[in-house]
Amino acid sequence: MSERSLEALIEALRRLPGVGVKSAQRMAFHLLQHDRDGAQRLAHALTQAVQGVHHCQRCHTFTEAPVCGLCEDPGRDTRQLLVVETPADQAAMERTGSYRGLYFVLMGRLSPLDGVGLDDIGVHPLLERATDGVVEEVILATGFSAEGEATAHVLSQALKVRGLTVTRLARGVPAGSELEYVDLSTIAHALSDRR
Amino acid sequence: MSERSLEALIEALRRLPGVGVKSAQRMAFHLLQHDRDGAQRLAHALTQAVQGVHHCQRCHTFTEAPVCGLCEDPGRDTRQLLVVETPADQAAMERTGSYRGLYFVLMGRLSPLDGVGLDDIGVHPLLERATDGVVEEVILATGFSAEGEATAHVLSQALKVRGLTVTRLARGVPAGSELEYVDLSTIAHALSDRR
Repeated sequence: MSERSLEALIEALRRLPGVGVKSAQRMAFHLLQHDRDGAQRLAHALTQAVQGVHHCQRCHTFTEAPVCGLCEDPGRDTRQLLVVETPADQAAMERTGSYRGLYFVLMGRLSPLDGVGLDDIGVHPLLERATDGVVEEVILATGFSAEGEATAHVLSQALKVRGLTVTRLARGVPAGSELEYVDLSTIAHALSDRR
Repeated sequence: MSERSLEALIEALRRLPGVGVKSAQRMAFHLLQHDRDGAQRLAHALTQAVQGVHHCQRCHTFTEAPVCGLCEDPGRDTRQLLVVETPADQAAMERTGSYRGLYFVLMGRLSPLDGVGLDDIGVHPLLERATDGVVEEVILATGFSAEGEATAHVLSQALKVRGLTVTRLARGVPAGSELEYVDLSTIAHALSDRR
């Protein structure tokens, strides 16, 4: 346990989000004892990703090309721009198969308490992207947490000033759920936004 | 999200124990967005550890030298050999400062349901190590789980046949605990092992 390489590995694993000392130890022992091949593969994948993956010049998501495949797709509607917090949210939206426009990936949401401000989540690139003269509607699909809502509010104001149509994903009762188990705030929103 | 390097990284992170798809995604995004330096450091640490860390020839723990520092320490009592499941257990025992003998690290415990047998946890190297003519007492400090107890039982029989004194860590009431909150099996053991 007083081995430098092993300690350096545990220390490096601790920097992963959600990994404490015990988990990092368990991961290091597991890799060295049972999965040295996996450790080498992870080292290689990390190096490749750090060298190769950058932000798409247009939508800001992670990509290995200057512009990502989705932004280059001629079949997408260039007049719609949907704003999400993370590439994972973008992937979820794509899996629905119900959106044919383009995206902008913020890489986070406003969180003043954690020191995450407008510049950190790429608001200026978004404003530039949205005012290219082609985009007509910006759909805000940030989360419905307090921070996601605040982010949507700030973006909405900045985008409306620039003459864009700004919409927000509908709030309402989730598919497949029974009213009695849905929280009251959701029911209230679903009622006021009824159609 | 349809990027090869990024997918390879998520896939490699998923092989870590306790990491599912969502955690792996979060880790990959975090590293690429906020901690590229950490990603590079982790890649380096993995490579160094895989290349440099091996099992100690005497106690089987992880070490970068052929024999670990603890086994080489002339101040330790060579007549006592304490058997633990993992290097983390060894570290915990060392922190108590109350043991001056040597160790043997099993790297696991018997778990027939998971296909972990005698050879997988290094029982043969232990038997060889314990019968060097110097070791007199083997202290079994495997865990007090069902699997740890089974491991201790099997080891105890194999070691006694070879003429060694075999002891087991005492079971009893943990320091600082109130009897009323201690489980019944522990109290029963503490009673029968009273001194």
